[in-house]
Amino acid sequence: MSKSAIKNGEIIREEDAVLPITSREVQCNYSVYEALRVLGGKAVHLKDHEKRLRESAAMLKMEIPELPLEKWIDTLVAHDGLEDVTMRILVVGGSNVQVFITYTELLTYPDSYYDEGVAVTTYQGERFMPTCKTSNLLLSYLALNDARSKGAFEALLVDRNGEVLEGTRSNFYALKDGVVYTADTDKVLSGVTRLSVLKALELMGVPVVLRAPGAEEIKSADALFISSTSMAAMPVSVLDGKPVSTDNEFVKKIMRYVREHELD
Amino acid sequence: MSKSAIKNGEIIREEDAVLPITSREVQCNYSVYEALRVLGGKAVHLKDHEKRLRESAAMLKMEIPELPLEKWIDTLVAHDGLEDVTMRILVVGGSNVQVFITYTELLTYPDSYYDEGVAVTTYQGERFMPTCKTSNLLLSYLALNDARSKGAFEALLVDRNGEVLEGTRSNFYALKDGVVYTADTDKVLSGVTRLSVLKALELMGVPVVLRAPGAEEIKSADALFISSTSMAAMPVSVLDGKPVSTDNEFVKKIMRYVREHELD
Repeated sequence: MSKSAIKNGEIIREEDAVLPITSREVQCNYSVYEALRVLGGKAVHLKDHEKRLRESAAMLKMEIPELPLEKWIDTLVAHDGLEDVTMRILVVGGSNVQVFITYTELLTYPDSYYDEGVAVTTYQGERFMPTCKTSNLLLSYLALNDARSKGAFEALLVDRNGEVLEGTRSNFYALKDGVVYTADTDKVLSGVTRLSVLKALELMGVPVVLRAPGAEEIKSADALFISSTSMAAMPVSVLDGKPVSTDNEFVKKIMRYVREHELD
Repeated sequence: MSKSAIKNGEIIREEDAVLPITSREVQCNYSVYEALRVLGGKAVHLKDHEKRLRESAAMLKMEIPELPLEKWIDTLVAHDGLEDVTMRILVVGGSNVQVFITYTELLTYPDSYYDEGVAVTTYQGERFMPTCKTSNLLLSYLALNDARSKGAFEALLVDRNGEVLEGTRSNFYALKDGVVYTADTDKVLSGVTRLSVLKALELMGVPVVLRAPGAEEIKSADALFISSTSMAAMPVSVLDGKPVSTDNEFVKKIMRYVREHELD
C-alpha cells in the first residue's frame, strides 16, 4: 500500500506532499518543523513538540492557527495502520499556512552505538537563530555530510568563540570531574530530549553547568555524549578521528531514563 | 493560458513545479539558484549567471551535470510566447539533481524610485556562505519583511563588526568624498550587476575601495545606492527612517550604463 500523509488535516498520498517552488515562503524556507516518535500508535511528548513548534513560529513572527495535531496524527496512524514510526510535522508560513505530517520508519540505532559509542567530527559554523527549529538547515546538511564522508556519525558545531554548542541534529554534553557541561539554553535548540537528559542527571545527583565546553577542552573530557529524540543519549568514543575517554555505562543510565519516561 | 515551466529540460505546467517535502535535500534547502532578466525573449547575461550558479554549486560540493540552459530558456520562451520576464533557475542537489526554470512578469520599479531614491533599513545578521547563492534565505526573508513593515524597500545586512555588507537582494555602495566604498568580493555575493556597476564607476573615473562601510559611517555619506539584476542601480534617500544625502544623478548615470550594457 502506498504511504499517506496529512496536509492541513486531510489525508493525502505522500507523493502529493509537495511545495510549489514559485512560493516566496518556500523559496526562503520560511518554515518550522518537529520530528517526533510514535510508539504503539501514540505520539511521544507531543505537547512538548507542539510547544516548541509554536515557539519557533513565534520567533519568526509566523502566525499559525490552532492545530489539532493529536487528532491529525491519530488519523494518519489509523489510516495507514501505523505502530512505531518517526513523524515529521512541517509548517510553512505566509498568508496561506500549510501544515504537513509525514512519516518514515522509526529511526533507531544498533546497540553497538550505545555499547561502543559513536564517532563525531567538529565543524565550524553557527546555526542562524539557534533556539528556533527552522528549515534553514543548509549548515547542518553540509556539516553532517562532511562528518559522514569521514566515517563519523554526527558533526559538532563549533562557534566563533571555539565553543561546542550542539550537533547537527543533537544536543551535546561533556563530563569532566563529575560535572556535565552543556551549552546554555539561549544558545541552542531546547531539545525535547535534552530536558529528559537534564532531569536524569538531576536524579543521578550529577551537577550540570550550562556553559558550552570549548573545542580544546572536550579533547580531555572524561566522557562526551549527544542526545536527540531518536538517539536518546548516545556516547561519543571518537572525536575528529581520535579515540576519546568514554563512560558508556554513565551514558546508558541516562539513555534508559529517557526511554523509560517517553510515555509519561 | 496557464503558465509553463521547465523541469530537467522538459516543459511542465508551472503548478507541477513542486518539491517533495520528504526529500532530505528539500528539507535542508540544499539548492542554488539564479534570477535573471529575459528581454525580447533573450536571457540577459546568461553566461555570467550560469558561471555563478556553477560556482555556488561547487561551494556546496554539489555535482551538477552540463545544463543546456540557453536551449531550455529558448524552449520556455517559445512555448509560452514570452518577451520580457524575470526567470528563476533553481537547482536542487543530491543523488537526483533537479533543475527548474520558472518565470514571473519582469520585475521593474517606478521611475520615482530612481528619481527620488528609496528607503532602506538596517538589520543585524550575516548570510551563511556569503559568496554562495543558496536557498538558505530565511535571514533575507525576515530582514526584508522587517523593512517592509517599516515602509522601506530593502534591508541592509549589518555584520558582527558593524559593517554594512549588502542588502537582502542587492549589493550596497556608499559614496564619500568622491570615492565609492563597497564590501570586498570575498564577503558578499558577486552580483552580476555589481560587475557592471564597478565597470561603470571605472569608466566614470570614480575610485572604488573594496571595504564595507560601517553602519555609523554611512549616515554621513554623500550618497548611498544599491544594485541588483532587477534594480540596476538605485539611490537610497532614507536610512532607518531618516533622510540621508543623495546624488540621484550620479546613481542614474550608473543605472543607465548597466541597462545599456545588458545586451552586450
